[in-house]
Amino acid sequence: MADNSGFPPHFPRIISEPMKSMDAIVSLCKRRGFLFQSSEIYGGVQGFWDYGPLGVELKRNLKDAWWRDMIAGHNELVSPAGAPSPFEMVGLDCTIIMHPQVWKNSGHYDLFHDFMVDCRESKKRYRHDQVRGRFVEYQDTKIFVTTLAEAEQEADEVRRRGMKYFKLRPKNADELTVGDESITLDKLDSHDNVLGPDAKSLGTLTEPREFNLMFKTTLGALGGDDATTFLRPETAQGIFVNFKNVLDSSRVKIPFGIGQVGKSFRNEITPRNFTFRSREFEQMEIEFFCHPDQSQAWYGYWRDRRLAWYKSLGLSDESLIMREHHTEELAHYSVGTADIEYAFPFLPEGEYGELEGIAHRGDFDLRSHMEGKLDPSTKPMTVELNEDGKPKYRGSGKDLTYRDEESNEKFIPHVIEPSAGADRGVLAFLCEAFNEDEAPDENGKMQTRTVMKLHPRLAPIKAAVFPLVKKDGMPEVAQEIYGSLKEHFNVFYDAKGAVGRRYRRQDEAGTPYCITVDGDSLTDRTVTIRDRDTLEQTRITIDEVVDVVRDRINA
Amino acid sequence: MADNSGFPPHFPRIISEPMKSMDAIVSLCKRRGFLFQSSEIYGGVQGFWDYGPLGVELKRNLKDAWWRDMIAGHNELVSPAGAPSPFEMVGLDCTIIMHPQVWKNSGHYDLFHDFMVDCRESKKRYRHDQVRGRFVEYQDTKIFVTTLAEAEQEADEVRRRGMKYFKLRPKNADELTVGDESITLDKLDSHDNVLGPDAKSLGTLTEPREFNLMFKTTLGALGGDDATTFLRPETAQGIFVNFKNVLDSSRVKIPFGIGQVGKSFRNEITPRNFTFRSREFEQMEIEFFCHPDQSQAWYGYWRDRRLAWYKSLGLSDESLIMREHHTEELAHYSVGTADIEYAFPFLPEGEYGELEGIAHRGDFDLRSHMEGKLDPSTKPMTVELNEDGKPKYRGSGKDLTYRDEESNEKFIPHVIEPSAGADRGVLAFLCEAFNEDEAPDENGKMQTRTVMKLHPRLAPIKAAVFPLVKKDGMPEVAQEIYGSLKEHFNVFYDAKGAVGRRYRRQDEAGTPYCITVDGDSLTDRTVTIRDRDTLEQTRITIDEVVDVVRDRINA
Repeated sequence: MADNSGFPPHFPRIISEPMKSMDAIVSLCKRRGFLFQSSEIYGGVQGFWDYGPLGVELKRNLKDAWWRDMIAGHNELVSPAGAPSPFEMVGLDCTIIMHPQVWKNSGHYDLFHDFMVDCRESKKRYRHDQVRGRFVEYQDTKIFVTTLAEAEQEADEVRRRGMKYFKLRPKNADELTVGDESITLDKLDSHDNVLGPDAKSLGTLTEPREFNLMFKTTLGALGGDDATTFLRPETAQGIFVNFKNVLDSSRVKIPFGIGQVGKSFRNEITPRNFTFRSREFEQMEIEFFCHPDQSQAWYGYWRDRRLAWYKSLGLSDESLIMREHHTEELAHYSVGTADIEYAFPFLPEGEYGELEGIAHRGDFDLRSHMEGKLDPSTKPMTVELNEDGKPKYRGSGKDLTYRDEESNEKFIPHVIEPSAGADRGVLAFLCEAFNEDEAPDENGKMQTRTVMKLHPRLAPIKAAVFPLVKKDGMPEVAQEIYGSLKEHFNVFYDAKGAVGRRYRRQDEAGTPYCITVDGDSLTDRTVTIRDRDTLEQTRITIDEVVDVVRDRINA
Repeated sequence: MADNSGFPPHFPRIISEPMKSMDAIVSLCKRRGFLFQSSEIYGGVQGFWDYGPLGVELKRNLKDAWWRDMIAGHNELVSPAGAPSPFEMVGLDCTIIMHPQVWKNSGHYDLFHDFMVDCRESKKRYRHDQVRGRFVEYQDTKIFVTTLAEAEQEADEVRRRGMKYFKLRPKNADELTVGDESITLDKLDSHDNVLGPDAKSLGTLTEPREFNLMFKTTLGALGGDDATTFLRPETAQGIFVNFKNVLDSSRVKIPFGIGQVGKSFRNEITPRNFTFRSREFEQMEIEFFCHPDQSQAWYGYWRDRRLAWYKSLGLSDESLIMREHHTEELAHYSVGTADIEYAFPFLPEGEYGELEGIAHRGDFDLRSHMEGKLDPSTKPMTVELNEDGKPKYRGSGKDLTYRDEESNEKFIPHVIEPSAGADRGVLAFLCEAFNEDEAPDENGKMQTRTVMKLHPRLAPIKAAVFPLVKKDGMPEVAQEIYGSLKEHFNVFYDAKGAVGRRYRRQDEAGTPYCITVDGDSLTDRTVTIRDRDTLEQTRITIDEVVDVVRDRINA
């Protein structure tokens, strides 16, 4: 048990290092109504998750904070710290189903696929890039590899324990040194030599097959106006195809951003890690349009600003990294991308998972939607034809250039895209918030408690109101306070059981403040307000309650 | 021009009856960025609409008002006026793609279809119920009929003008009297005698074909775990299948409601009337669970409360009706349904379109998901089989009953469902808000103005701040005011052009308050605040601005 000396006596005692067990987090999420598996009573559907009564409020608070901080509350008249100039921000809300040509020109129709392989032995399915060339033979042992750092670290372990395999992510290394040997991974890229992650014998994986990750559906009835189309795999394209509409209707001037929050769908081959890789997920995306000469400066600005945003809502410095993509990792459209990554507890130590990507997309999207850009030899989709039978435009043929009113310069803006996952955000904040410590119960006895240290802006319930006991007029006073708070915030009333247990229930829900009406309240009209994290209890007057809660939330 | 006497001189002059031209509303929506056709640069997709910068704020405000008024701000300790008792409300957010068995047991897989017919002459497609048996022969003229009232009204017109057809909605009449003749419509239900709405010759319609309105898609890759599933046609079922999860995680007690806001999809054969009948739309649904003995009382409560809600946000008494469904109109699950309908301007006078349905669903849904209920002879889907090859359960087999802790009674709750369409709500508020009147310009000359009289809670922009002129330090003061307002509300800064034109632009956007900084502001630190609807201008101090705007919005 860690030393607590120096802290006030009410302060929760820290139990060694914070333990972040993913199982404990998942279990709390279900038990307290943050997250349920979709269609659970029918056995569930892999990769789909529902938000329960607490989860829906948490997710709404996160999305609202993003909308307020990035879009609706943005002051366009002043240049924020680090920004090259002032800029404007507006919102948009587009449909999930769009014209199929959108996905042809965005590149998703031709390029947004994974390769998958099946294992004939284990009957499991894998993404090819997660198993390709990952088997190496080392000192007569079959080794299955993931990261280079891990590989080197674990080389001794493999020898010592006679382990069968460990894992290597290919993007980090083409070459692996184990002991004195240097092994080039591309030599191992034959399926006969590959060991499936769950197989006992070699060569059980099938040849890789291409699989487009967009969900397909059909518009209209059986007749002639039928059309295959797709559920959007990202919200971004809705913004690009509306670029001109926004310009024409709202008089924004470059530099400006368009933000959107909404669902996207990817038919992932292997959804996993709780809500981290889901097939249906929600994005919070900005497309920021600027002059090409300024795009690098804006790229830097958005990287820094978005990282600072996660910290402002409570993610710790140590859990976050900014990872600049290597050139070979970049998406087909990108001239530079950085990921904000979080140390999710389900990952091995030292590994991080993406929360948000900030991509410098150049003019790829607007240019593609204008004039088309893809190689004509890729799979064709129906495009409008000229009389000579040749495609009229591979793009829309609409003019998506921007004309600067002052300089009269005409150009296709460059785009910086900070693209955040709302579900991954929620998951990171849940993981960060999850803490186990010891705190005194009502008899002063130390007890383990589970506490969700969510930022007050994100907390589903802002405050709970308790009458100490269910008599002597305390419930009436507590109900009056509950009523006045409820006009402003989502608050909770609880009169059942020992007050210590009621505190613990709110700790698990992440409620930052508990207000208790006791015997003194009836004479001097004061109550205690207890802070979830410090356990400090302060006496305030009943008239102050709404203001105190509001001030603390916004502090 | 109507008489304006009795109103203060600044009051906008009313031009005869309010003119609600649907064309003018649609045009304003596009021009000012409320609504765009989805994928417009690719020719659009029928039945899909995007919300522009103003539209997204309006729709967010409507959904937030619903969430706050129905869910997060609900005081569970007091019994609201007209309610049989206090009750609890919680939220939920479920996935659009669910397990396909959900739609088998909800009835949508077997019963959620329309019949469609094609016209061989016009090549158009119709819903069968919109053309069936609608042709009548009258005085050697082929007459195509819609409503009885219309039919009678137009009988003379038909004669006088030699018109070819008019239209009749079947639910309103099985029999039609034209002149002295009485014609029974079912006699005309032969396709050979039916005149297609856009055809010149008889009998050009094909036989009706069944068409399920759910969008289909496929989960997973090509292999064995593939499954056809559907985009949800309503959010309601996500609530039912999570009923037990919510009970177990949040300790709610009957009576209580679960609310959800989210997208749904229906592959409508004939999307039309702007956003009214869209294929992708957003719902705001409550499933309210109560004891069967109390369900009629709760049904009445929710009907009244929901109607009052629309009025509280500005829909007029004259434009709204509550229509109780006839028995034969009820959905297969319903034991009683009332629609809140609005007099949309695209409908003929005296007709209304559905905004929200309040359905008494009995125990249909929970019982179906528990034990199944549909006729086993309907199209089968894969269900879990017993060893004898018979279906184990047609439902989930999970116990979805409720046990009352006090009485120990066990029962399947009855459900009242107030189901609102967010897009239809937005459309109704846009139509209601659209007004044309005359108001004095800055020279006192009367000019026509278009003004969106949106309720301040719904208005996309709450206030605009103008410096009267772009000099003498006025912009600096205006920018300071803008900055302090922007911390709380979505506000707009405009320094360009004559102030009269700036007012008009905000009138069109529905901005309720305009704050102007003029010469006096620099000496006495006061500004004018102009009311969009009354045109009244009041002088207030700069320090008061935030509070005055907040008070007026919440008034």
